[in-house]
Amino acid sequence: MVSLLPILLLYLIYTTGEVVSDHRKIRIDDDVYCESWRFSVETNDAGYWSTIPARCVQFVQDYMTGDRYRYDSEAVAENSVRFAKTVEISDSGSDGWVFDIDETLLSNLPYYQLHGFGSETFDEESFDSWVDLAEAPALPASLSLYKELKQLGFKIFLLTGRSEHQRNVTEKNLLYAGFTNWERLILRGPSDQGKPAIIYKSEKRSDLQHEGYRIHGSSGDQWSDLLGFAVARRSFKLPNPMYYIS
Amino acid sequence: MVSLLPILLLYLIYTTGEVVSDHRKIRIDDDVYCESWRFSVETNDAGYWSTIPARCVQFVQDYMTGDRYRYDSEAVAENSVRFAKTVEISDSGSDGWVFDIDETLLSNLPYYQLHGFGSETFDEESFDSWVDLAEAPALPASLSLYKELKQLGFKIFLLTGRSEHQRNVTEKNLLYAGFTNWERLILRGPSDQGKPAIIYKSEKRSDLQHEGYRIHGSSGDQWSDLLGFAVARRSFKLPNPMYYIS
Repeated sequence: MVSLLPILLLYLIYTTGEVVSDHRKIRIDDDVYCESWRFSVETNDAGYWSTIPARCVQFVQDYMTGDRYRYDSEAVAENSVRFAKTVEISDSGSDGWVFDIDETLLSNLPYYQLHGFGSETFDEESFDSWVDLAEAPALPASLSLYKELKQLGFKIFLLTGRSEHQRNVTEKNLLYAGFTNWERLILRGPSDQGKPAIIYKSEKRSDLQHEGYRIHGSSGDQWSDLLGFAVARRSFKLPNPMYYIS
Repeated sequence: MVSLLPILLLYLIYTTGEVVSDHRKIRIDDDVYCESWRFSVETNDAGYWSTIPARCVQFVQDYMTGDRYRYDSEAVAENSVRFAKTVEISDSGSDGWVFDIDETLLSNLPYYQLHGFGSETFDEESFDSWVDLAEAPALPASLSLYKELKQLGFKIFLLTGRSEHQRNVTEKNLLYAGFTNWERLILRGPSDQGKPAIIYKSEKRSDLQHEGYRIHGSSGDQWSDLLGFAVARRSFKLPNPMYYIS
């Protein structure tokens, strides 16, 4: 009996080693796949997608809850400030900057942490309940950027896909997170319902331009915040590997 | 003398360990920084930049010569094919796809490997000598995509920032790398010199549209290949962390 013990131990070490090594290989393969998936998503190459790939749940979780998301967001903010400082602000008060809200100024990560980091089909009802709580924290890098842009003299326009009926909770949440003194908060009105975000947002930027505002910069986590028509002089894409909005 | 040996050895192990550990920490910090720098470059957040950050030379080298560049390029090609297959090709022969050339169809990595992976200021003379060799290899994923698009019935337009006087070597290089039967190769003529790439390329796409071509897809490693006006229905950004063209 005793003489079998070393053999048994060796066998255990051997098989466990196999399992660990296989598991590790799968994780590495997934990471390679998911890194390239993230590239295709962040560059808009992927086009429409509904949920993140099942094999990338761990990858997206690591990205969003580790340092990388924060560092990438900070890099975007640094590039934004660098550009903003080159803008000559006129006395007319017509120099504007447009911010999206969700995953740009406010982070819904507490919600997505409970809903698979984008692996579950979007559920409007439960998301709206989360929005009603008005407890989304600020993205720290965006809050710093916001304050710096205001100090530089930009008028801040908040342009969100949220609906007019969410105005109160949205204002409440923005103030709770530390954002103050925006020039205007633009939400989807009755005539904007059903429009693709890229059209709705382009139309609203176009309206601002017709009012005489010069939109120097635009910040958003979706390409539909940034492309289309009446685009800003410079657009700043924030990271978001959790969901896609057309 | 002999009794000091273990102490000396311990000291050596200790100090070497320190050095290795410090060196490793710097590499990790650099990687974190360079990952976020790459994000800001690939999303166009960074805007104009002339050379890669000095601390990212090793990072860019690892990216370009390891698996990641190849995998990212393959992901772009897969997304492109997926979209291309949804296009209904008409009998009129007017369904087009636009490709940039450098770092899109052809890889100049052999040149950049000898020139610091983008850390050296661009030297037109030495780069043009490399172009004259007509020895740039194909990007494998783009060559597969190119062949698949032709089989699907797309007319292929090659739109490059290279100049008209480089037409012969460019054709020679394309054939050498395996590209055949493009519809047209468009290079900068005398009236295009000095124009920003984004204007020059938009004008040429606009000309194609006025000729009656429908540009379904556009592939390029620079945002100036893809944005501007007369943009394609879908744009596909290939990776390139080595240089930026306005």
